[in-house]
Amino acid sequence: MKVYYAIDIGGTNIRIATFPVDGIQPLHLKKISTFGKTSVINRLSQLIMDQKRDDEDVIAIGIDAPGPVDSKNGIIFSCPNIREWVNLPLKNLMEKQFSVPIALGNDANMAALGEWYFGAGKGFHDLVYITISTGIGGGVILDDQLLLGSKGLAGELGHFTVVPDGPLCSCGQLGHLEALASGPAIAKYVAAQISAGRASVLSNASLPSAKDIGIAAHAGDELARESIQRAGKYIGRAIADYLHVYNPSIVILGGGVTQSGEILLEPIRVAVEKYVMSPVYLEDLLITTAQLGDNAGLLGVLSLARKNFPDR
Amino acid sequence: MKVYYAIDIGGTNIRIATFPVDGIQPLHLKKISTFGKTSVINRLSQLIMDQKRDDEDVIAIGIDAPGPVDSKNGIIFSCPNIREWVNLPLKNLMEKQFSVPIALGNDANMAALGEWYFGAGKGFHDLVYITISTGIGGGVILDDQLLLGSKGLAGELGHFTVVPDGPLCSCGQLGHLEALASGPAIAKYVAAQISAGRASVLSNASLPSAKDIGIAAHAGDELARESIQRAGKYIGRAIADYLHVYNPSIVILGGGVTQSGEILLEPIRVAVEKYVMSPVYLEDLLITTAQLGDNAGLLGVLSLARKNFPDR
Repeated sequence: MKVYYAIDIGGTNIRIATFPVDGIQPLHLKKISTFGKTSVINRLSQLIMDQKRDDEDVIAIGIDAPGPVDSKNGIIFSCPNIREWVNLPLKNLMEKQFSVPIALGNDANMAALGEWYFGAGKGFHDLVYITISTGIGGGVILDDQLLLGSKGLAGELGHFTVVPDGPLCSCGQLGHLEALASGPAIAKYVAAQISAGRASVLSNASLPSAKDIGIAAHAGDELARESIQRAGKYIGRAIADYLHVYNPSIVILGGGVTQSGEILLEPIRVAVEKYVMSPVYLEDLLITTAQLGDNAGLLGVLSLARKNFPDR
Repeated sequence: MKVYYAIDIGGTNIRIATFPVDGIQPLHLKKISTFGKTSVINRLSQLIMDQKRDDEDVIAIGIDAPGPVDSKNGIIFSCPNIREWVNLPLKNLMEKQFSVPIALGNDANMAALGEWYFGAGKGFHDLVYITISTGIGGGVILDDQLLLGSKGLAGELGHFTVVPDGPLCSCGQLGHLEALASGPAIAKYVAAQISAGRASVLSNASLPSAKDIGIAAHAGDELARESIQRAGKYIGRAIADYLHVYNPSIVILGGGVTQSGEILLEPIRVAVEKYVMSPVYLEDLLITTAQLGDNAGLLGVLSLARKNFPDR
């Protein structure tokens, strides 16, 4: 039978799934650690080889990776966590090795595609997806087209100045949304407030995780609650600007930090309404959470592979 | 012969041009004041009627207007200066009256199209156009498609928070790029500095025009120079964020304020380099000025009309 492979490369794990020509139920799914005794590229190759079944014929492989990816030319410019991957022509390398077409995309772009085809964004034509997790990434679909830009680097929604000369971002710039509202940014704010003498159930943890903060917030801890609301306000203000820039009809919020639920979403909605330039942008606008969780990326690369290399 | 009409509605003048099926030399061109004894809509209708020649057959009419325009449905949500135009279904009205298809667009979007088809952006696939004038507007083309978004309101590049809680913008929000770097914003800064006691050749003018400031800057006036450089720095920082959001291969700067030339452009380039998250965005990126001047909008609506309603 004919199949597609979808591969999600993360900083901790690499996942591979075999999908039929139609449908989104994987036939086989495997996960390995990204790092081990051999190089990441060798581990990836081995994973693909191990996935092969004699009765399956692979039409194409879709792969996503974090960080800036030139999806048009199939090059990974750099990859957080995988330091040796700089200007890596992954598409060419894999196509040579496996003689199968490869579709490559940035992980947040692919999650946006996944949510659009199969999740919260189904049926919408103009979609902004923002993932709020260790970093903040995004993907944008306008008029049913994934925005790529010249090198496939469009939609870097975490790297947008929200507070000029604000806290240091992972990219080296100051005051980006990611530096103010990602999981680590929320944790740093909590830690700084505790150092400054504020009371919190989190005061025993040296640097609490975003998950711990979410739990504490739901349990009524005031500092935890405020730290998430503060992130929500920044995210909402950034979304207001994204409305002016992209004019979507749906904004989908994914990533671990959104598990804080309404504590995060309510200040986001309030800030969007406060900072939007005209109510016209809010008519028929839906702001909602992602539906596919960790599978959004896998389903996104599956869609990309099917679209770029249809079964004929 | 078959022709297209292109109409540019501005706050001061309305211009109409008759174009042949191919080529960008207008056959006839007429300009009237936007306001007069009759309503703007009646003046527009009369202008179209007056343009008609017996030997010409109009295939379609392209129209642009400032302010938020729903180009998909042909509605002008609102129009700075023309206060009675609120949710005006201009496309329907004109199509009924003239039995000719109408293509409608926002003026900055149309100027972007014009520069892309016929000006500085010719041959590029991923273009950001920013016009810096009384207001700041924009238009974006990615993968050879004009970005519209859900209601055709994408690319409002002047309405993007650059200084949180900064100066009041024309839209009612605070600290938008338009409120910091448009012609009036530059003039206000100069006036405030003069009030605070700074010396300048402009100190006799109560509120100097952006043009006067440009002239004074070229003549060596330090305050005038600094006020333009300050605007350039804000524009450059915004462009850096736009690179992350759109990843263009060309940024085209139009509008009257760009006539300050290198005094504005140099700080823009410096700020873009300083604030971009990765040099990858700068590879093969061109930052340049518009080529079509006031005709960009007319040529843009011409392109839109030809594209939407080709001569068959």
